[in-house]
Formats: sequence, structure tokens, C-alpha cells
Amino acid sequence: MTQRIRDISQQGQPGEVITLQGWVRTRRSTKGLTFININDGSSMAGLQVVVNAELPDYESILKQLSTGASVSISGTLVESPGKGQRVEVQASQITVFGAADPETYPLQKKRHSFEFLRTLGHLRSRTNTLGAVFRVRNACAQAIHQFFQDQGFLWVHTPILTASDCEGAGELFTVTSLDLEQLPHTQAGAVDFSQDFFGKPAYLTVSGQLEAEIMAMAFTNVYTFGPTFRAENSNTSRHLAEFWMVEPEMAFCDLDGAMDWAEAFLKHVFRTVLEQCPEDMDFFNQRIDTSVLATAENILAHEFERITYSEAVTLLAKADRSFEFPVEWGVDLQSEHERYLTEEVFKKPVIVTDYPAAIKAFYMRLNQDGNTVRAMDVLAPKVGEIIGGSQREERLEVLERRIQTAGLPLEDYWWYLDLRRYGTVPHAGFGLGFERLVQFMTGMANIRDVIPFPRTPDNVEF
Amino acid sequence: MTQRIRDISQQGQPGEVITLQGWVRTRRSTKGLTFININDGSSMAGLQVVVNAELPDYESILKQLSTGASVSISGTLVESPGKGQRVEVQASQITVFGAADPETYPLQKKRHSFEFLRTLGHLRSRTNTLGAVFRVRNACAQAIHQFFQDQGFLWVHTPILTASDCEGAGELFTVTSLDLEQLPHTQAGAVDFSQDFFGKPAYLTVSGQLEAEIMAMAFTNVYTFGPTFRAENSNTSRHLAEFWMVEPEMAFCDLDGAMDWAEAFLKHVFRTVLEQCPEDMDFFNQRIDTSVLATAENILAHEFERITYSEAVTLLAKADRSFEFPVEWGVDLQSEHERYLTEEVFKKPVIVTDYPAAIKAFYMRLNQDGNTVRAMDVLAPKVGEIIGGSQREERLEVLERRIQTAGLPLEDYWWYLDLRRYGTVPHAGFGLGFERLVQFMTGMANIRDVIPFPRTPDNVEF
Repeated sequence: MTQRIRDISQQGQPGEVITLQGWVRTRRSTKGLTFININDGSSMAGLQVVVNAELPDYESILKQLSTGASVSISGTLVESPGKGQRVEVQASQITVFGAADPETYPLQKKRHSFEFLRTLGHLRSRTNTLGAVFRVRNACAQAIHQFFQDQGFLWVHTPILTASDCEGAGELFTVTSLDLEQLPHTQAGAVDFSQDFFGKPAYLTVSGQLEAEIMAMAFTNVYTFGPTFRAENSNTSRHLAEFWMVEPEMAFCDLDGAMDWAEAFLKHVFRTVLEQCPEDMDFFNQRIDTSVLATAENILAHEFERITYSEAVTLLAKADRSFEFPVEWGVDLQSEHERYLTEEVFKKPVIVTDYPAAIKAFYMRLNQDGNTVRAMDVLAPKVGEIIGGSQREERLEVLERRIQTAGLPLEDYWWYLDLRRYGTVPHAGFGLGFERLVQFMTGMANIRDVIPFPRTPDNVEF
Repeated sequence: MTQRIRDISQQGQPGEVITLQGWVRTRRSTKGLTFININDGSSMAGLQVVVNAELPDYESILKQLSTGASVSISGTLVESPGKGQRVEVQASQITVFGAADPETYPLQKKRHSFEFLRTLGHLRSRTNTLGAVFRVRNACAQAIHQFFQDQGFLWVHTPILTASDCEGAGELFTVTSLDLEQLPHTQAGAVDFSQDFFGKPAYLTVSGQLEAEIMAMAFTNVYTFGPTFRAENSNTSRHLAEFWMVEPEMAFCDLDGAMDWAEAFLKHVFRTVLEQCPEDMDFFNQRIDTSVLATAENILAHEFERITYSEAVTLLAKADRSFEFPVEWGVDLQSEHERYLTEEVFKKPVIVTDYPAAIKAFYMRLNQDGNTVRAMDVLAPKVGEIIGGSQREERLEVLERRIQTAGLPLEDYWWYLDLRRYGTVPHAGFGLGFERLVQFMTGMANIRDVIPFPRTPDNVEF
């Protein structure tokens, strides 16, 4: 029976006869013995297989066993004399499914830059680093589901296609079934969207929050976990046009409650990944960013600091250093400010609350002062904002006023306002960019290397 | 402390003091007592609260306690004299968060058609049926993750935006950041996509399979679970423009292996949902479709029948009844044929394999006969095809020939062909339409009622 290499490495007993299947990572020969390392993606390390020259067809098999070749190998487990591995395999039978011509196979033993590997989106997952990234990504995703499910939250699928722009923030992709080369027009000369699939313009969602609120008003606690889109022309190491977001929404919950949830949530995800992927996390700590484990431990070890925006501004004004962007009450915090607070003042995650209403979205609950809203940003050392959230405005009249002040058409929000008309409740939620979390966890410098197939300006390959 | 109603109903002890929060479903008054049923979405039943006329502000509170109002209630649990509930609450304090004017709140006690409820996408989850649907949907989704994770599969996020059309099947939505009212044109008069976000035309994915194959060639076993799109102008009870798909892909696996996985997978999901949502499933069996539980039991009780397409055609030709679409070797099976096989011949799920190459996709592995491919469809009683899959063509030359025969441009598939050039392996996978599974499970007649916000021709509301 075929087994996964991770299981064999951890639990296999000397003397056991096993069959494994995978791809050759490395090969070296010495004195009539050939050592090949086989990897099946279940773990970083792979398994060492010893091939004896007395194996039938030794020479012809050997010729095909180059890096990237796919094999099925049966043999007996023996204790390994080598360092860093408990057992190895004495091969008794080898089948080569597919060779990988060393002359042309792009992934040879030497190291490649991540930039070069991005041009090989169909092969790069076979490398150590990207393999570790996608195992950690999977572990993160499962930790997220597990956290919410254990707490009685429902996973809700909010729509990808939408007629509305959640925050009026723009940067939308248009979706159409019309032929762009032959757009139909109205008599007045505008594009005739009545002939489009949905009979009106449609867009890709930038957030599932408003629909998640609908669901929270029926199920109390829900979360989204799905793709969201931003047609923002940002060629940076932190932006993607397509990325996955996690957006929990809790009814009967105020901002303090949301902060409790956010902190418990982040800690659970970090704890779970450290437990489930120790080998991969050690790799990141050694090869990618030597502060990765310390950062994770820091998050687990401390209660997050909670300060208001006004307190943050006071602290920044008192700082014995100058910032590129000067701080005064009313301006948004920049990355340099966030890092100063987390890395120099508190040396741990900080939740900043109660931002000026003018720099936050219309749906955030207005405080009694009339100037600030019950928003929160969770800031982490090294990366800055990792979670953004708020208590939502549940008062009909206040919400109507805020929509109008934001210059948005009230009629577009009829159903959102209905949630305040019928059984409105205090509620709150937050959003987490999943790729930024994986970046944070792994220390990977470029967000394009933590999603299998990144979409960025001019890049929609694979 | 606030507790969820499901937990109180199942575990609460008489004498316990509790606080619950939710929405009023029903109210009736008798002899100085008012009975209200509170639901928080955690279970179908809700909890009965008894309000005594001696409660402070009884009259003014009562006035607000109409269907849909949101409340927080503290009180003491007592044994319930009523039928069908273990405990009820003697209220000692009631806070009303938000009323729901009985004159205008659209969800009054009387039954509404599902068609009418679709116009209330922001409120319909508060009804018994839609509530049960979305709890079952969540349980299905978690059962899917759990099955694959327990078996060492990685959840991989294949791209939503793509430059390619997986099967050359058409029906694509176009995605653009261009202003449709002012499209840029080249000198030759065509739309100038070099100015578009991705520098070329981009589409919404119809399947993550090809990219899942990339990931399986690195991690052996993977699955996708994400939204897919079809710009098909089908106004039926089985079609959505946006729906979620589950697509596992297994390296070192042939079609027999894929059939084993598909059968184990379906059984696991049905078993888990029956265990986790017995109350909701009973409801569907009583109110929606009285065969729902029998169908589920049938799936769990039997080994799926496995027959070839040619055997199926022979059985259909021998049938002592006439079909609307006559059957002969080479034609695709219609719903009436699939139902005849599952409901009348075998009376259980049937997996049909080895379809004519001409009616299946280019990537399916060609059999030695040169006429059929290693495809499979899993057919279930009452619903027909629930899963479609295949062993993939892993031989480079055969695959190239098949792409060309299908009239597709070879150069578009350079990376897909590379998977066969470098370490190719036998592999197989299948796809399951998630909403159809939920429809199947719940007996809901219209697919628009098993997804929170359905997208269909002319419908992109909420």
C-alpha cells in the first residue's frame, strides 16, 4: 500500500515493507550505491532511498532518476545512519513514471530567486520554500475554520459578483458577458447594460461585510472566507488584485467583544500553525526571516495592548524621533507610526481604537463625541496592520445620515438599512487579509510568493 | 454570560440563571403570561421564554415584542411543561434592542413562497427553512474540509481570474478595469487590451482543475473549494452564474482510485450532516421532500454500482420503456437515462465510466480502444449526476494530439504540457458542484434557495 512520506518518516518501523511515490529531489552515487531523496509534498524533508547496484536494471533506472523524475518505490525500512533522519528505504523495486530531462528541467539543484520562480508558477511549488509556504497556508486556513466552527460561527458564502461597491471606495473590476468588441448602445449613446447578463453593471466584490451582516442578523455569529478583488494599480510586495479575506461578523457584540475575538483568533491561528508545521516554521526562521519564531512567540505570550487613536497620537507626538509623515490628530496612521507603537513603545501587538470618523467608513458606529468611530486596527510588530474592524452603526437615523454625508446614494443601501429597521442589534466584525497573515507567519517578503497564482498588474498567467 | 440557544436547549439545567440574545419568532399571551419564542440561528427550535405580567414595564416591553424584534433576556431555566422542549426560561429582565414594526416587517407568521422570499434576500435567512438550509450548508462545507484534511489533502486556492478557458467550453464572464463607456482602441480598431489591468483579456474561472493539477504534482493530494462562474443564460432551478465547486486532484491515482475517493467522500459528507444536523434534516424530510432521509440512508447503505458507459447503453437499450431521447452508443446520457439507471435498475448510486472520447474533455485519459476515455460520472437517485471526474491524460504526445483535435491552441497549454514533460504521473480527480450537493441533501427544489445570494440572469441583488 502507498503511504505518505511524512507518515513513514514519523511512524515507520525498521523492517517494515513499504511503497512510496513521489518526485526525485536529489541524487548522489558512491561505491555501487545511489542515494536519492524522494519528496511527495507531505513534508519538507523527503525520504532517503538507497539503491543498490544489484537491483535489476540498475543502470537504465539510474539514468532516469534525475531531479524532478516521478517514481514509485517499494522497499524495506532500515534505521538510517545519516543525520537528521530516523529511517531510510532499501529499494527492492523502482518504477519510473516520468523522467525530467536535466538539460531542460528548470528546477535544478541550485537556488533560484523568487522572482525567477514566479515565471514558473506551474513548477515552483516543488521547491522547498514554496512547498513550505503552501503547507503553512493550508494549516492557517484550517486553523481559521476550526476556530470559528468550534465557537459556533457559520461559514457563509457572500457573493463574488455584486452590483454594489461596499464602501464606495472604487477600484472595482467590471464583470460583463457583453462582447467588448461589439458593445450594444442605447439611443442616447451609452452602453446598453440592459443587454448584459445581469441587466445592469456588475462588479467583483471588494468585501463581503455588508452581506455578512445580513447573515449575522439571522445566525448571530458568522464568518466569510473567500476571494475579494481590488483593481488597484499597485505594484508592491503587499498588494494583490485577487486575495482571500476572512471576515467574521458577530451580532450582540460591541467593539470590546470584537477585540476579544480578534485577539483569541490570531493567537489560535499562530498556536495551531506552530504545532502543526514545526519543520516548515523552523525552515522559515533559518532561511527566510530569523525573527519569524520570535514574532509568533511574542504574539502568543502577551495580552495585546489596547489604546485609542487619540492616545496613539499623543504617544507619537512625544516620540524622541522624527517621522517622514508628521502626526497630528485627524491624519491616518502610517506604517512608520504603527511600527513605532508596536516595536518601540509596547514591543507587542497593539489594538488602536476610536479613529476619527472622517478617515473611516460610513458603517462604523459613531461615538458620543460625534468625531470618532468605534473602529479598531490590530497592529503587529514588523508588519503593521493585520486586522481592521469596527462596531457597526446599528441606529437607523445615524446610519442614514452617515451614508448621505459620505455622498453615497441612500437608495442603494435599502436592504442594509432594513437590517436597522427590523430587529437591529449592536454588532461588530473585522477583516483579515489572508495572504498578509501567511506573509506575516512565514516572513516571506513578497505577497506574490504566498498565493499559488498571484494576480497583479499585467500578470494573469497560469 | 450570553449563551447560544442551542447549547441552553441541550445542556441547560433547571435552576440555572442564563442570559440569551436573539430575535422574537412568535408571541402569544394568556392570563397575565406571555410566551415568546426566541431564535438566535443556532438551531431550528428556539427557546420558549415566559414573561410574567409582574415584570417591571411589562406593558411597554410587550408592545415591542413582535415578530422580528431583537432582545436580550435574563432569567431562570425551568423544566418545560410544554411538548418538544426540555427547558424554558422564566424571564427576570428583558432588553429590547430593536423593534420590528408589525405593519411593515415582511416576515410575519404566515408562510411565504420561496419565490417571494428571494426578493427578501436580506431577511429570508431568518425563516425556518432558509435557516435550516444554511446550517446544513455550513455542516456540508465543514464535512468536506474535514474529510480531505484528515486524508492529508491540502486546500489550494486556484485563481478566480484567468486568461484561459479551462475546457474551451465558452460561457465566460469577461473581467476588465477599462471604462466600458470609453474603451481604448488600437489603430486597427480593436479594443486595446494592453491598457487593461492585466494587459490582456481576463475571465472568471469555470474550473480550478488545471491549476489543481499543478498543485497535485507537488503535494500529491490537493483539493479546491471556491467559487466558479458560468455566463450561461439558463433560467432553471439547477443553474447559477456563480457557484462553489469542490475539486480534489490526486497524483499517483487512476480512475479506480478516484472512484474509491468519490464514494468515500460522498458517504462521509452525508454521514456527518445526518449526525450534526438531525433536527434540520428531520425538518426537510417532513416539510420539503419526504424522501430526503431515505435517499441519504440509501447512499450510506450501499456500495455504489460501477458500470461502463457501454454497459449503460446496453441496459438502456433493453429497457421496457421509451425515452424522450433515444439512446445509442455515442450520445450523451440524459437525465431520464441517469434516473432510470439509479432509480429503476440499481436503486442506488451508480458510477458510469469510460465515456466516448468525442463527448468528453480533451484532458481525460484515452483508453487503449482509442474511442473511450477514463471519465466517470457519479449518478444518484432523484438528482442524476452529482460528481464528474476522470483520470487525466498524463502522456505528453497523446495530450498534445487531443488538444489539437479539440481545436484548441497548443501554445495556450504550454504549462499544462510541461507537467507531462517533467515528472508526469498517473493522476485523477473529480468535481462536485457544492450547491447541487446541498440541494440533494436538503431536497430544496430550486438551487437559488441553497446559496445565500444567488446570481442568475438579470439578478445580482444584495
